[in-house]
Amino acid sequence: MTNKIILDSDPGIDDVMAILFAEAHPAIELKAITTVYGNATIENGTRNALFLKQKYGFNADVVKGADKPIVRDPVGPTIVVHGETGLGDVHAPTDLTLSADPRPAYQYIIDSVKAEPGEITLVAVGPLTNLALALEAAPEIAGLVKEVVVMGGAFGMNDHRGNVTPYAEANIHDDPHAADIVFTAPWPVVVIGLDVTEESFFSKDYLDQLRDDAAEVGQFIWDISRYYLKFYSEKVGLEGCHVHDPSAIAYVIDPSLFTLREGPIRVVTDGPAEGLTIQKFDERKYQHDDWGMNPAQKVGVGVRDEALLKLYRETIIEYGNR
Amino acid sequence: MTNKIILDSDPGIDDVMAILFAEAHPAIELKAITTVYGNATIENGTRNALFLKQKYGFNADVVKGADKPIVRDPVGPTIVVHGETGLGDVHAPTDLTLSADPRPAYQYIIDSVKAEPGEITLVAVGPLTNLALALEAAPEIAGLVKEVVVMGGAFGMNDHRGNVTPYAEANIHDDPHAADIVFTAPWPVVVIGLDVTEESFFSKDYLDQLRDDAAEVGQFIWDISRYYLKFYSEKVGLEGCHVHDPSAIAYVIDPSLFTLREGPIRVVTDGPAEGLTIQKFDERKYQHDDWGMNPAQKVGVGVRDEALLKLYRETIIEYGNR
Repeated sequence: MTNKIILDSDPGIDDVMAILFAEAHPAIELKAITTVYGNATIENGTRNALFLKQKYGFNADVVKGADKPIVRDPVGPTIVVHGETGLGDVHAPTDLTLSADPRPAYQYIIDSVKAEPGEITLVAVGPLTNLALALEAAPEIAGLVKEVVVMGGAFGMNDHRGNVTPYAEANIHDDPHAADIVFTAPWPVVVIGLDVTEESFFSKDYLDQLRDDAAEVGQFIWDISRYYLKFYSEKVGLEGCHVHDPSAIAYVIDPSLFTLREGPIRVVTDGPAEGLTIQKFDERKYQHDDWGMNPAQKVGVGVRDEALLKLYRETIIEYGNR
Repeated sequence: MTNKIILDSDPGIDDVMAILFAEAHPAIELKAITTVYGNATIENGTRNALFLKQKYGFNADVVKGADKPIVRDPVGPTIVVHGETGLGDVHAPTDLTLSADPRPAYQYIIDSVKAEPGEITLVAVGPLTNLALALEAAPEIAGLVKEVVVMGGAFGMNDHRGNVTPYAEANIHDDPHAADIVFTAPWPVVVIGLDVTEESFFSKDYLDQLRDDAAEVGQFIWDISRYYLKFYSEKVGLEGCHVHDPSAIAYVIDPSLFTLREGPIRVVTDGPAEGLTIQKFDERKYQHDDWGMNPAQKVGVGVRDEALLKLYRETIIEYGNR
């Protein structure tokens, strides 16, 4: 069975790793890349998506999305992690012949979901602004989407907490209000957060081997990841990188890679824990429990990381040598 | 060495267990019981403290404190846990001959700390309103207190989260703004939260044995705890009760009972995680870290529960048979 997905993304180095994964795997039909500010500015991120489309001949539409969060002040692109334009030392050409769909991303999402009710999986690997705007403009899409898969958040499992503050993950911290809207809406959400993405690791050797085995695609992933690995080496103290955004695609391809926990999710929108994601996952009754009745969503709490790494490697190698 | 303490309390069944523990142990000089709304109304809680003073002939002053939180709307007494007047089925007489110190608790705290600089340990086992009011009126006391020991909060250790919401402990949830003031002030704070208090357990048998061995004091603790145990049996599904407030006293008597973790602490003051306590306890540098530079405080993350239960039992038996 093929999963039709709209990949909402802020490309971004690991975003590109995820986009290529989605395009490459036969279980996924990549219908569109909707872009959002985050790892890069909206202009650079959209250009990066168009660059990929042109370079690899994607059928997917590229659609430009939100340039800022719905309530909070913008945090700004994470240049220290993803480089000046979002792809590390690689820069998309400024004279691309392709252009983005004329609609704003939230409208494209609404139109696509309504055109194929029950068919579309939204996979969001950046700030959740586009999805929240779509829900606000057309709440009825909640009942028409097949599933929403989000890379974001940190629930304290496996000792993983925040990566941009002690308790907040970057995508959620960028727009906590949007995340709270998306997680409390009556559609089925699966959150693949740091709890699991930091349990899978692309080592330096893994990426070297991919470069050797996956032809031009392997070389491209290797090229864009040099800057990313420099960040990891210097700031995180690891030789390699966690598998953030590709993990959300891995979930779509093979949900059995992950162990999930069910329960309502909320997001702290301000204060010292701004961007913190919390889940009520037990049956306990509390004296004060004004959010425990929200829709039960799923959070990844465990991952078979070796199987995920194998799936990624084999998919990219086959795509590179197609 | 004797520790001079002011015990700030919302009596409360486990508060009385803690007050008797403090009065009974030779390592502690109980100078005062300052009261605060929480488990009971301020009127009932203060009457309960005066009742204890009269019944057992304490030298300690009883001082009436705040009747409501500093910012948020009052949550109200937890009658379901502590009964209508705070001591379960036991009710303090309304014709007590003793009366409270004329000062408000926060002023009493300020005066006492200034009178004996470096000597007083504040042990707070209720909402932190009195301590926050004292700090606001006289910030200089932060440098004059020996230590602040707080029963409150939940940091997710040992799988313990909230007890009145999925993520908030009652004392902190009652006045999160006060707690944030107390935890970020430049005085040494030790937080004994659910992470450790829910690791020690007064079983039904333990309390029965205490009744048999500790004479009238054992009988009194048994009497007040009937209502509390009924709550635990019916609502929590346990035959017995956690050792909340007495754990803070145990820390003062023997800090080696606990394993502590160091780092700045903050409190979420509103939203779905209202009352959540968080600590930054690693050395990692984050892109956004506007509270990591607050004073490092200590949080209990482990307890030698058998040794704590033995200490409590032996202390109360000796006191009951004095």
